[in-house]
Amino acid sequence: MFVQMELSRIVFSEINNQQVIYLREVAGTREFYILIGIFEASSIDRRVKGAPQQRPLTHDLVCCVCNELGGKMQEIIISRLEEQTYFAQIKIQHGEKIIEIDARPSDAIAIAMLCQPPLPIFVEENVLKQSISSQQS
Amino acid sequence: MFVQMELSRIVFSEINNQQVIYLREVAGTREFYILIGIFEASSIDRRVKGAPQQRPLTHDLVCCVCNELGGKMQEIIISRLEEQTYFAQIKIQHGEKIIEIDARPSDAIAIAMLCQPPLPIFVEENVLKQSISSQQS
Repeated sequence: MFVQMELSRIVFSEINNQQVIYLREVAGTREFYILIGIFEASSIDRRVKGAPQQRPLTHDLVCCVCNELGGKMQEIIISRLEEQTYFAQIKIQHGEKIIEIDARPSDAIAIAMLCQPPLPIFVEENVLKQSISSQQS
Repeated sequence: MFVQMELSRIVFSEINNQQVIYLREVAGTREFYILIGIFEASSIDRRVKGAPQQRPLTHDLVCCVCNELGGKMQEIIISRLEEQTYFAQIKIQHGEKIIEIDARPSDAIAIAMLCQPPLPIFVEENVLKQSISSQQS
């Protein structure tokens, strides 16, 4: 079962390269966080703030290649947590087919925030439970 | 007219965020450089060194989306230099069509180095001349 989440906060660390993004349940109060790199965090933050940019950045390229080849991004899913690594997929509709692209959650969320409107973000119920449990301990 | 180039050096700066990649003429001796960000420089460097990676990084995603949607990357072109900004395109074959995606040269070169074999890199003759002239002064 998948639970729809939304980006609630991005916290930048000034002392290391581990930035934190928080995802909160859309229809509830549960929340968990994922540690991501500074590049991906900046990319997400820029989009959230609507900062103008003169040239396409790397995440824009992913969207641009998808659109130009006739794909339409549908949603992103955080499906698995293994040894503290989260696994995500970007779902793309291409003609009659749905294609799933393996991605890091940081890239998937950056891409979700690039789309207009932003793509829905889902997390597998067990991943959500497991994350909350390990992050509370 | 386009001139084929190859990546000859990546120079990392320890004092600022401007890394330098050098492109050298394949059939000659002319060379010029482009300043790029640390993220793109690291991505190119990792590929040149064949460093293993456990999860797909952002440039891998561009290639993966392209492949999954039936595109085949052909080559990259650095076509324009305006006010010290270089403009590049990634050429993708999609069925009968050739699609050109606007990109920063750093992303285009990172993607070129990801492909097996690496994509050919072309630069417009006037851009090459203009770069060499301004970089020598």
